[in-house]
Amino acid sequence: MATVRDRFRRRSAWRHRLHEIVFEADTQAGRAFDLALLLIILASVAVVLAESVPEWRADYGAAFRRLEWGFTALFTVEYLLRLLAVDRPLRWARSFFGVVDLIAVLPTYLALVLPGAQTLIVLRALRLLRVFRILKLAEFLREAAVLRSAVRASRRKILVFLFSVLVLVLLLGSAIYLVEGEESGFVSIPRSIYWAIVTITTVGYGDLAPQSALGRVIASIVMLLGYSILAVPTGIVTSELMRARLRPPSTQACPSCGAEGHDVDAQHCKYCGEGL
Amino acid sequence: MATVRDRFRRRSAWRHRLHEIVFEADTQAGRAFDLALLLIILASVAVVLAESVPEWRADYGAAFRRLEWGFTALFTVEYLLRLLAVDRPLRWARSFFGVVDLIAVLPTYLALVLPGAQTLIVLRALRLLRVFRILKLAEFLREAAVLRSAVRASRRKILVFLFSVLVLVLLLGSAIYLVEGEESGFVSIPRSIYWAIVTITTVGYGDLAPQSALGRVIASIVMLLGYSILAVPTGIVTSELMRARLRPPSTQACPSCGAEGHDVDAQHCKYCGEGL
Amino acid sequence: MATVRDRFRRRSAWRHRLHEIVFEADTQAGRAFDLALLLIILASVAVVLAESVPEWRADYGAAFRRLEWGFTALFTVEYLLRLLAVDRPLRWARSFFGVVDLIAVLPTYLALVLPGAQTLIVLRALRLLRVFRILKLAEFLREAAVLRSAVRASRRKILVFLFSVLVLVLLLGSAIYLVEGEESGFVSIPRSIYWAIVTITTVGYGDLAPQSALGRVIASIVMLLGYSILAVPTGIVTSELMRARLRPPSTQACPSCGAEGHDVDAQHCKYCGEGL
Amino acid sequence: MATVRDRFRRRSAWRHRLHEIVFEADTQAGRAFDLALLLIILASVAVVLAESVPEWRADYGAAFRRLEWGFTALFTVEYLLRLLAVDRPLRWARSFFGVVDLIAVLPTYLALVLPGAQTLIVLRALRLLRVFRILKLAEFLREAAVLRSAVRASRRKILVFLFSVLVLVLLLGSAIYLVEGEESGFVSIPRSIYWAIVTITTVGYGDLAPQSALGRVIASIVMLLGYSILAVPTGIVTSELMRARLRPPSTQACPSCGAEGHDVDAQHCKYCGEGL
Repeated sequence: MATVRDRFRRRSAWRHRLHEIVFEADTQAGRAFDLALLLIILASVAVVLAESVPEWRADYGAAFRRLEWGFTALFTVEYLLRLLAVDRPLRWARSFFGVVDLIAVLPTYLALVLPGAQTLIVLRALRLLRVFRILKLAEFLREAAVLRSAVRASRRKILVFLFSVLVLVLLLGSAIYLVEGEESGFVSIPRSIYWAIVTITTVGYGDLAPQSALGRVIASIVMLLGYSILAVPTGIVTSELMRARLRPPSTQACPSCGAEGHDVDAQHCKYCGEGL
Repeated sequence: MATVRDRFRRRSAWRHRLHEIVFEADTQAGRAFDLALLLIILASVAVVLAESVPEWRADYGAAFRRLEWGFTALFTVEYLLRLLAVDRPLRWARSFFGVVDLIAVLPTYLALVLPGAQTLIVLRALRLLRVFRILKLAEFLREAAVLRSAVRASRRKILVFLFSVLVLVLLLGSAIYLVEGEESGFVSIPRSIYWAIVTITTVGYGDLAPQSALGRVIASIVMLLGYSILAVPTGIVTSELMRARLRPPSTQACPSCGAEGHDVDAQHCKYCGEGL
Repeated sequence: MATVRDRFRRRSAWRHRLHEIVFEADTQAGRAFDLALLLIILASVAVVLAESVPEWRADYGAAFRRLEWGFTALFTVEYLLRLLAVDRPLRWARSFFGVVDLIAVLPTYLALVLPGAQTLIVLRALRLLRVFRILKLAEFLREAAVLRSAVRASRRKILVFLFSVLVLVLLLGSAIYLVEGEESGFVSIPRSIYWAIVTITTVGYGDLAPQSALGRVIASIVMLLGYSILAVPTGIVTSELMRARLRPPSTQACPSCGAEGHDVDAQHCKYCGEGL
Repeated sequence: MATVRDRFRRRSAWRHRLHEIVFEADTQAGRAFDLALLLIILASVAVVLAESVPEWRADYGAAFRRLEWGFTALFTVEYLLRLLAVDRPLRWARSFFGVVDLIAVLPTYLALVLPGAQTLIVLRALRLLRVFRILKLAEFLREAAVLRSAVRASRRKILVFLFSVLVLVLLLGSAIYLVEGEESGFVSIPRSIYWAIVTITTVGYGDLAPQSALGRVIASIVMLLGYSILAVPTGIVTSELMRARLRPPSTQACPSCGAEGHDVDAQHCKYCGEGL
């Protein structure tokens, strides 16, 4: 505790104030800063999208380019301010949001050397994830944490699942390649695998579709398989979300009455009121 | 209690009777009114749909127009009756069904000033939601309430989820734009984002589909992502519906610390140990 | 019990034997009969499918017609045998399988009077549901009963859901009709509603797809809605299946120790061993 | 235990060492062998895929053929080594991985007699399932076992479901065949059934789509049915996964009546009341 307090004392007043504005969202100035930043990020992403539309690029290309430089200048200043505001700039620069903030300014400068790099500006969209900081912070973060922990807990099961799907898709793609041949558009095994993925995920573009009777039988099997398989990841995530919500399997027994089945956050036995 | 009884006494007998017919569905007259109304709404929506079919509009356009005016006249009278039947007309007019009932009559009048506005008549379909009043009321409303509360409880998680999907779709759409280019139809980032949404939701129209090998690899990743991601909202809603079933939604607050979320069988607050 | 035994005694021996062969699957003869019947049904359905293929109809049309008459004759005899074997023929004839068995023979005769009716022979496929009788009967029937009860319990919730989806699809279809207009193929509101259904269910044929920017924005909203909405019926069915599996909400208390939370099929208290 | 130790003693030292390298992944040599093998399998599958691309086959066909023979030689040696390393070669050869390893070498030899057989080399992809042995073995196997047991437990329910879907698809396909006729591409009942599968699984290629108003109404019903039906397998798998989690898979059998499926906290058999 002492070191933290000392560190804060060592910081000059303006750096402390800067940190509050730039990093926190609980003072009025900090909230205003975050909101303004969010709007600027949105505007900046919108300009990148608008510039990619051919008709608009022809008419307003130069204006878009100027706006981009303006946004980049703003973000560069902001990035430097953030570096200034934290005690350990290098450590922040390597954190998730530190890297994202750097990625947000680099492409414009890179485009001076490497033409075309400016489309990478769209990576700025990652900064939009800051939105959760402005909304009622704590509640959203808690929900996001539940989701994240459920996804992380089912990570291995989903990996096993995805890998099995990939092997399946490899075999089914090869089968349709053998059966359909090149005149139906299944010109190679990789393209047939692409078709199998399109089909098993029930996307079904229709750019490739079996023409022969046997090919249609195989396709029907792939679809019904995909239909049944679709159930597996849903089951995995749902059961993890349920587990996070229901009582965890390793429960505490009440020291006084011995009852079990308490919630993870319980501090008192719900049957006798004894502290846990 | 007394004020309610007084208020009812102050209403003249015919207004009381009108209220019973127009608003309630438990007397025979009220049930008949609701059923007739439902059929008229259905007929009115059917006329709007039929009028939009070019061949039918050419042949029966004038008849459809007359029918529409007839229905509008009926609904206008009904709206006025409802205003008459309630004690606080303004309050009812601003309620959900009050607004819906106004929306049901406005477009026809609006079309006198603003041609084309009459297609808005289709908003009358919202009135069809009254159907639940006529069917065995209580049971359906209870089921609807369970669904609504499950959706409301998972509102924040679904918002977090949708926002993350939007950022993902922005990045994936930009990636396919860079890789595929304009000759495959990916003429701008917004259109590529549209493609990413079509693909990640597994709709897959096929109006846009990647042509290059790398584009197909990216598309495959998008599809498999979508496939796995599809599991998340399902998991959220399912776990909420389960919770609504396992733990009833109307929970007790602790009289001492005010905390909520206790189990049905809890006898003591799990946070402060106070008896419930 | 006595009446059942009497009734069986009143039946002559051969009718009893006939009943065992035609209706039961636990004697060897009954099993053989059911298996043979299943194969004949499969063959009969296969002939209907084969006859619908233009090339095959041209070559073997007459043979197919003869086979159909043969199958119909067999099924007619079987239908009469069934009528003979049961004690109350009229009652059986009105049961689910009684109606299905009649439907299996009628179309061929009907086709004599009404040409084209013979395609209805495909309704024979319903007879294939008998397959569960031949497979390990009890276990499959129990599983089917669990599924059926879960679907029945969620019937009302799914009705509420489907009705809301229909109203939603009506409004979204009208919106895209207003925005896209006839040159993109959205020639009428009914067809636009068809598009909305194709899209919200994530089928996505691609025969209708929005062409304008605003139309694509609306389509994106429809897809993301469909994506989230897809979660609701899954959640409903899953939570019902879970409930059927987990302890039901209305549980019995042990008369001896008062403990609750027993399974539906429990005959003894799992805590004290007392009979329930 | 004794017999296992004896068997190991009877094996000569080099066979023991060979077994450790070829079959186990817990020594350094065994791990290195498995990793090398995995990379070779991947390379071998990649060559099959690459060879199927027409442009590459034209340019590098001979090189691909030579590589294939090299991989086949390697796998043949490995197969013989495995046969040598196990005590009961025949038993291993008939196990799942024994058959897979044979399938991995056969097609190349077969292609000498039967041209075209070499596309079967893609079956080597099945060997990729070995990947789980190299990754943190135990944890992945446990997850895979949970998934497998959940799928196995819901096997019968999913069979009932798939069979009902097949009968449904048969009837819906015939209905659309009757309504749409040949000019819309529904040339035969089998093809219409293919369309029904494409639609009910929400794949929706769009190579077949109804053109008439009535056909579109039927298609809408199929889609909404598919939408609701999609919920069933998900519900089945989820509830099995939940059960595997809530009630541990290794349950106690009643010592008196042999019944299984008791709760973890049960002290008495719920069927006969005997103490557990």
